[in-house]
Amino acid sequence: MKIIVIGAAGTIGKAVVEQLGARHDVITAGRNSGQYRVRIEDPADVAALFAHTGPVDGVVVAAGDLHFGPLADMTPEQFRLGLDSKLMGQVHVALAAQHRLNDGGSITLTGGIVGQQPIRFGANASTVNRALEGFVVGAAIELPRAQRINLVDPTVLTESLPQYGDYFHGFESADARRVALAYSRSVDGAQTGQVYRVW
Amino acid sequence: MKIIVIGAAGTIGKAVVEQLGARHDVITAGRNSGQYRVRIEDPADVAALFAHTGPVDGVVVAAGDLHFGPLADMTPEQFRLGLDSKLMGQVHVALAAQHRLNDGGSITLTGGIVGQQPIRFGANASTVNRALEGFVVGAAIELPRAQRINLVDPTVLTESLPQYGDYFHGFESADARRVALAYSRSVDGAQTGQVYRVW
Ligand SMILES: NC(=O)c1ccc[n+]([C@@H]2O[C@H](COP(=O)([O-])OP(=O)(O)OC[C@H]3O[C@@H](n4cnc5c(N)ncnc54)[C@H](OP(=O)(O)O)[C@@H]3O)[C@@H](O)[C@H]2O)c1
Ligand SMILES: NC(=O)c1ccc[n+]([C@@H]2O[C@H](COP(=O)([O-])OP(=O)(O)OC[C@H]3O[C@@H](n4cnc5c(N)ncnc54)[C@H](OP(=O)(O)O)[C@@H]3O)[C@@H](O)[C@H]2O)c1
Repeated sequence: MKIIVIGAAGTIGKAVVEQLGARHDVITAGRNSGQYRVRIEDPADVAALFAHTGPVDGVVVAAGDLHFGPLADMTPEQFRLGLDSKLMGQVHVALAAQHRLNDGGSITLTGGIVGQQPIRFGANASTVNRALEGFVVGAAIELPRAQRINLVDPTVLTESLPQYGDYFHGFESADARRVALAYSRSVDGAQTGQVYRVW
Repeated sequence: MKIIVIGAAGTIGKAVVEQLGARHDVITAGRNSGQYRVRIEDPADVAALFAHTGPVDGVVVAAGDLHFGPLADMTPEQFRLGLDSKLMGQVHVALAAQHRLNDGGSITLTGGIVGQQPIRFGANASTVNRALEGFVVGAAIELPRAQRINLVDPTVLTESLPQYGDYFHGFESADARRVALAYSRSVDGAQTGQVYRVW
């Protein structure tokens, strides 16, 4: 199958490319890296990506920014960062993908454990990650031609502990290799509207 | 207690005002109705509302628009409607309220059953309603001075069946009076980070 991975150079994306690349034709994309450059925040960029690749059997997104910071001084602008990037960015990809996927093709988006297990400074992340669950559940029942959409919901990655570990004391981390399996379950499996928790 | 109800003239709001008015000092607000005019989409409007009322013991929001329409031709702009109105509108109120609520004061926001039970044309509603769950869960652990935040998650209202009934065949509806009890549970109770389902 022909599968686009957006965020292919990232901590999660690299492992997904390795996992899926073993049996699929993987097309890599990223903001400043990969075969195609795309900013998922920009619908025109996303449209251009699919125009370049032509029809595909799957698209994976492992990209999108959130705002982390104390609720007490969070501004609406800060809060919008997660909505504009991680949420709308992935929604842009899904809305475009439905017209570009082959029958039975899959859309796999990325959430995160903070949607269900809140942490200090994580109000924006809880909102966005939970929103993505809702989007996947809502979109799944409307996609045409047996297209599918699922969310991978990882705990903090072991590889990311140096960066985010201080937010996640007491959480069990997961290796990127293990997280990548959930993307394979979505791409290679037959389910839709699922939230694959890796925690 | 002194409680602001935003959306006080609405199907839900009217019943909330009746329920809470029996024992509290209720301040009504709405877009074009009530004691104070406020557009929750505008943070400056929300700030002005709290500046007018001074410190309060609770704020209820039963307002905010969503986009309903087929996923197949949903545009990012349409999708943003729900993010800008029902989601960010309520987030604006909560971010402002944390600095204006008395100790132990409550913030009560409104979601909806489509967050958990998707319907055709409801991808935006599923996203926004689920996002609000995440926000409440995330914000609850950071609010200061025993402040609380909860979400009321109603099924379709019996009173709204003439308007929305065709989206909700097979769903059990709930009377506004019954839905209003959940707002009282939030305002008069002591819990935080709760999603009160009325379905
Ligand atoms: N790491 C974790 O512990 C963890 C846990 C749970 C959830 N997540 C979620 O998983 C996603 C990926 O995380 P990660 O840690 O793998 O990220 P990462 O290592 O920072 O990698 C991000 C990747 O996405 C690309 N990218 C970034 N912004 C983009 C944009 N706007 N448009 C297109 N591509 C973009 C980057 O491209 P360039 O390198 O070319 O800039 C990079 O390839 C995030 O949404 C994050 O919230 C991560
Ligand atoms: N009705 C249902 O079946 C149902 C079920 C589940 C969830 N909900 C949710 O509950 C909320 C209220 O629904 P409803 O049916 O009670 O609505 P409604 O009858 O249309 O009433 C909305 C109320 O909110 C005010 N309002 C509207 N937009 C506003 C804004 N941008 N800023 C401030 N106030 C605004 C209106 O003021 P004016 O009258 O002055 O314009 C009115 O008082 C919505 O978010 C809806 O998604 C409704």
